Amino acid sequence: MLSTVTKSHMAVAQNASGRSLNVPIYTITSGKSGPNVYIQSSIHGSEVQGNVVIFHLIQALKRHGINGNITLVPNCNPVGSNIKAGEYTLGRFDPVNGTNWNRGYYYDEEDVINFAEQVQLSDTIEQIKTRFKAHTLAKIKAKSSRPWGLGLAQQLNLKLQAMASQADIVLDLHNGPVSSRHIYIPEFLAQQAPLFSMPHVILIPNHFAGALDEASFCPWWTLQTLLNDRFTGHYDFNVEAYTLEMGSQEVIDFVDGHHDAQAILAYLQAKKVINTSQYEPASIQRVGVYLSDYKTLFTDFGGMVEYVAKPGEILKEGDTIAKVLNIDDLDNEHATQIISAPCDLIPILHFPSASVLSGTQLYKCFTNYFSIT
Amino acid sequence: MLSTVTKSHMAVAQNASGRSLNVPIYTITSGKSGPNVYIQSSIHGSEVQGNVVIFHLIQALKRHGINGNITLVPNCNPVGSNIKAGEYTLGRFDPVNGTNWNRGYYYDEEDVINFAEQVQLSDTIEQIKTRFKAHTLAKIKAKSSRPWGLGLAQQLNLKLQAMASQADIVLDLHNGPVSSRHIYIPEFLAQQAPLFSMPHVILIPNHFAGALDEASFCPWWTLQTLLNDRFTGHYDFNVEAYTLEMGSQEVIDFVDGHHDAQAILAYLQAKKVINTSQYEPASIQRVGVYLSDYKTLFTDFGGMVEYVAKPGEILKEGDTIAKVLNIDDLDNEHATQIISAPCDLIPILHFPSASVLSGTQLYKCFTNYFSIT
Amino acid sequence: MLSTVTKSHMAVAQNASGRSLNVPIYTITSGKSGPNVYIQSSIHGSEVQGNVVIFHLIQALKRHGINGNITLVPNCNPVGSNIKAGEYTLGRFDPVNGTNWNRGYYYDEEDVINFAEQVQLSDTIEQIKTRFKAHTLAKIKAKSSRPWGLGLAQQLNLKLQAMASQADIVLDLHNGPVSSRHIYIPEFLAQQAPLFSMPHVILIPNHFAGALDEASFCPWWTLQTLLNDRFTGHYDFNVEAYTLEMGSQEVIDFVDGHHDAQAILAYLQAKKVINTSQYEPASIQRVGVYLSDYKTLFTDFGGMVEYVAKPGEILKEGDTIAKVLNIDDLDNEHATQIISAPCDLIPILHFPSASVLSGTQLYKCFTNYFSIT
Amino acid sequence: MLSTVTKSHMAVAQNASGRSLNVPIYTITSGKSGPNVYIQSSIHGSEVQGNVVIFHLIQALKRHGINGNITLVPNCNPVGSNIKAGEYTLGRFDPVNGTNWNRGYYYDEEDVINFAEQVQLSDTIEQIKTRFKAHTLAKIKAKSSRPWGLGLAQQLNLKLQAMASQADIVLDLHNGPVSSRHIYIPEFLAQQAPLFSMPHVILIPNHFAGALDEASFCPWWTLQTLLNDRFTGHYDFNVEAYTLEMGSQEVIDFVDGHHDAQAILAYLQAKKVINTSQYEPASIQRVGVYLSDYKTLFTDFGGMVEYVAKPGEILKEGDTIAKVLNIDDLDNEHATQIISAPCDLIPILHFPSASVLSGTQLYKCFTNYFSIT
Repeated sequence: MLSTVTKSHMAVAQNASGRSLNVPIYTITSGKSGPNVYIQSSIHGSEVQGNVVIFHLIQALKRHGINGNITLVPNCNPVGSNIKAGEYTLGRFDPVNGTNWNRGYYYDEEDVINFAEQVQLSDTIEQIKTRFKAHTLAKIKAKSSRPWGLGLAQQLNLKLQAMASQADIVLDLHNGPVSSRHIYIPEFLAQQAPLFSMPHVILIPNHFAGALDEASFCPWWTLQTLLNDRFTGHYDFNVEAYTLEMGSQEVIDFVDGHHDAQAILAYLQAKKVINTSQYEPASIQRVGVYLSDYKTLFTDFGGMVEYVAKPGEILKEGDTIAKVLNIDDLDNEHATQIISAPCDLIPILHFPSASVLSGTQLYKCFTNYFSIT
Repeated sequence: MLSTVTKSHMAVAQNASGRSLNVPIYTITSGKSGPNVYIQSSIHGSEVQGNVVIFHLIQALKRHGINGNITLVPNCNPVGSNIKAGEYTLGRFDPVNGTNWNRGYYYDEEDVINFAEQVQLSDTIEQIKTRFKAHTLAKIKAKSSRPWGLGLAQQLNLKLQAMASQADIVLDLHNGPVSSRHIYIPEFLAQQAPLFSMPHVILIPNHFAGALDEASFCPWWTLQTLLNDRFTGHYDFNVEAYTLEMGSQEVIDFVDGHHDAQAILAYLQAKKVINTSQYEPASIQRVGVYLSDYKTLFTDFGGMVEYVAKPGEILKEGDTIAKVLNIDDLDNEHATQIISAPCDLIPILHFPSASVLSGTQLYKCFTNYFSIT
Repeated sequence: MLSTVTKSHMAVAQNASGRSLNVPIYTITSGKSGPNVYIQSSIHGSEVQGNVVIFHLIQALKRHGINGNITLVPNCNPVGSNIKAGEYTLGRFDPVNGTNWNRGYYYDEEDVINFAEQVQLSDTIEQIKTRFKAHTLAKIKAKSSRPWGLGLAQQLNLKLQAMASQADIVLDLHNGPVSSRHIYIPEFLAQQAPLFSMPHVILIPNHFAGALDEASFCPWWTLQTLLNDRFTGHYDFNVEAYTLEMGSQEVIDFVDGHHDAQAILAYLQAKKVINTSQYEPASIQRVGVYLSDYKTLFTDFGGMVEYVAKPGEILKEGDTIAKVLNIDDLDNEHATQIISAPCDLIPILHFPSASVLSGTQLYKCFTNYFSIT
Repeated sequence: MLSTVTKSHMAVAQNASGRSLNVPIYTITSGKSGPNVYIQSSIHGSEVQGNVVIFHLIQALKRHGINGNITLVPNCNPVGSNIKAGEYTLGRFDPVNGTNWNRGYYYDEEDVINFAEQVQLSDTIEQIKTRFKAHTLAKIKAKSSRPWGLGLAQQLNLKLQAMASQADIVLDLHNGPVSSRHIYIPEFLAQQAPLFSMPHVILIPNHFAGALDEASFCPWWTLQTLLNDRFTGHYDFNVEAYTLEMGSQEVIDFVDGHHDAQAILAYLQAKKVINTSQYEPASIQRVGVYLSDYKTLFTDFGGMVEYVAKPGEILKEGDTIAKVLNIDDLDNEHATQIISAPCDLIPILHFPSASVLSGTQLYKCFTNYFSIT
């Protein structure tokens, strides 16, 4: 039995003309039980490749039977998508106040601790999951309806999280500036890395810094840790959440998007969301890093930069990573300055403009990386 | 004996042309011992009135004798001052990444706790102060020289804090968007409020959220609290730090600036920094509020807003605070919508543009306010 | 018989989410013959006061009988209204390419010359008007449908002009940055000035620089000039077009908007669009200037400016118009610099930010002005 | 005898901190007579590759003897280079008012006509050139010193043009958004195309639209046309001016810059500015187009675009040029929309962002192009 696709729209904001800004919500199901999957893209307005990935996913999923249901929310931030500043999209933060669009989700560790204390040993996993989802949703709704109101980014985040909080699998599709494909995986799910077709893997701790993946897995990770401590059990809620970085921002590519979608389908197949065996993760080398070893290289001086090291390259300590032109010294030996790799590293992404001020985040790099098999 | 003014410049950043961006540093002293005073303005680039205040301060201080020394740093953020987006100055955050220019100062509570443990009962106040200033400066310098570099806002903040951290009195001059004059005072210094000529006073706790005033008083407040606990003593380091909001952004006014400077001179006179008796705080009503009662009113819908309530007005619950025009309903009874005061309040500042998206911070208001005498 | 208000929406653009951006169109008529009136506001997105004026106009016109019909298009540029850059609205130009939103209307003098040559002496005024309106509309539509497409600002302008070109009276409601109320009147309509309640009047020649008022009156002025030459007649098509500047941008004020609307109603009453005698133009002094004497004062140096002269003030040559603070010289006599009026003048508007680069348009001023009676 | 390089700086603007913004000026000469060459780069702040080209030029020219002198002005617009809006550089127009930084140069056809009328048949080419250069410089200086001041872009342009107007050869180095390498050549210099290593050549008429190349060649072209008419002679002033587009904006690449510099050296060698025979124009196919056939393709709808056709590709009418994703129809056959080539064409450049509003300039294309040999 094939799946059916249902479409609706949700108002997430109003613009200065007083009109509602809507996001499309596609829901796919075959009416069978199974996991709830939530996939969104473009919370950062200039990171658009995920929208093409969702297009290919919907086209493919229509031809399969689904266990459970899949909710796909492309272009989930219509405010961020539509703020132009020059030719580019000023999509990473609210242009009014600088708030990152991906930092206003809800998580309250205290609240999870309180919830955990009320779990009984006799409660089944499913009972706990159902109660905890309802509990979290109620908290999100309460937070959304404060009498003095909420900031735009947080309003948007909470509306999306009301959906994501009910899912067992959450995929948040992003892009880097000029970037390799990479994925953020919570440490407790490290063994899932081979299910994805991402060459670069960042393992992140149980720490909430505001993003959707953290807001989605921290509560469950915390809850199962607390229950395992309390009951010395093996609670595993099978809730997973990942941030996938599908290459560079400001670009959509339908062919790449097809590959990206195939890779996600392989993951969904492994999770029994779709009953197929046709998809396979790419047979690639995977390199991992702990978040604390995923380092940002800032420049100490301003100027015009050639990004010599390309995303994904393997560099040794001292190799040239970037070269800066000094326009006031073009006639002498200070005309160019070399920025070298401070240690062995793999650059994962770099700044998208040649012109930088001092203190610009030039590169993000894997250090102390390791092979994942 | 009159004071002398010394001027120097400090490079705080480099622009994309590779040129250094400098801030002027004015130092005033008469060669006598006394407090170190540090005053800066315009860390937010569009909040410029403080620069005029510093101008008037320098002009007046030249004609006085000084105890100790006064360092004045006008226009302390040449990056933020020079980012235009349309006719206005995009001065509150780094245009590249949204980082608020006033959130990257250094404070580490753990470090203060460690320092406190090494204080001996026999140490004099002055010995502790000298050691703690040197200790903090070393920490700031260490943080500034991380091998992978630092972001621009943080680099700038730390360079300024290297100076502020050596001061006994820190005044950070800001503006609100459309704003009354008001001041942030740490709770442990509440009794100092009458020394300033500010009608509205926000009392803030010993909590670091990134700003210069907090970065300046939290270490000392924490240290004296710890020492008073440990030695059941009455340690008082006489270190004070305040944020003064000198009215509205995007405006300079020389006459108002003269009044603002006279008011600061009255405070400095009370602190024995200048040996005069000619200045007096304004004889005004002062209204105070705890930070937790200083509330932000967000709008739930977008549109065009008249800010009916003016900064400083006393409103009763239910009074009209703003009125929104709905351009799609100009022919019917939904054309205008009233936003009412959710409780008794005093609006202190409001958003500077009539056009707002949902989730815009319309007003910041005093609630549960009280009279200060 | 009272008028009826009809509302519709017209899509003028699509945003990056692929959604249509609509403007509301209010049409008011009592079914009687009379002039076509077209009124729009906010072609520059931050100039919003006209929207309140249109609100009050609609409310008042509902209570009157109308001769002819009145089309009102508030917030006619939903792209410009919704581009925020910091707290303000980047509304004067397309953020992608800098194109002024009020410079892409259509006018082709050659085409008017050709049309004029085909007019017969026997044609009545009404016949010529009907034919010329149809002719112009066809030209606008042809221009809109070029196979390679058109830029956004021009697309928007032409969609609005398709309506305005059919009107006998066109009012385009704008604001200045920080501004007095003033009006642009074509020289051939100079005698209409007392019908408006505007203290400052700019008389503009028969020259097209891209704006809607010019695009609306230049064809008719040119046509009647040509026909009067050719037939030595007294052709007068009674087509009028004006740009009204309703004070300062980024502000809406309902009370002021009510006065502004009353003043426009007085004009419409004089034009017999409404059958009332209750409205009267304000009894004020009116000062006029020819466009060539409406001068822009640029600053030669950058810095922080107090706008000492207020819009509408009468200044003598040499009077202080602005005062600039030089942050690098606060300790000496170069701390402030005076900018003086280069001649007798009335400042009409000034730049809205205290921070300016060299070459910023500080003021626009009336010089060689005269009294209008 | 080798050349010597002299460096100076010229203030072209002041920023809001009151500081001068300087451009570096490198002058190279061996003290021999010969042409004056003027080369500038980055008048549009995000078009930075020319700065690397100038670096390589200076390095190479130091090792040669020069006839005449060469003035090189890299990063000639320090205002435009330093306006960030998000991660990119808002470099094409003044952020305050939208003025294109490359449209404020001076040219007055009337003035050339007047000058031509005063030329005598007995005047030598060199006499006329010397007088006309002095005349033009005086006009530029007069325009720069108007009592009411000038706008920033125009001030900047005139300061640069004061140098360029004295040159016999002017090269203005630009970039497109995402772009092939191409060159603008005035029609009267069409035969010079093979001296450059540019695959795509746009031939432009004797029409001034504000840019530096036009401002540099229009006076001479007009003058020689007038004199040739008047004296039926063969006046040829050997003044040349070109705009070179060195690929894509926001990128610097040292290796490509070396090739670009070698190509310019080949041109300078052909012009006898350097006494070498080591450089050769690239042996490539060159395709030309008249400016009227260099067409802009605008999109009629907004959405997310894949730029399928790459700069330099040969497309037939009907070929897919771009593909647009419609996020509201991902489940049906309207999910993607094809934009086809309206005729045979070569795309030369395309918009640099996937997210576009309706009316965005998607591509600029050669149509009716021809081979240049």
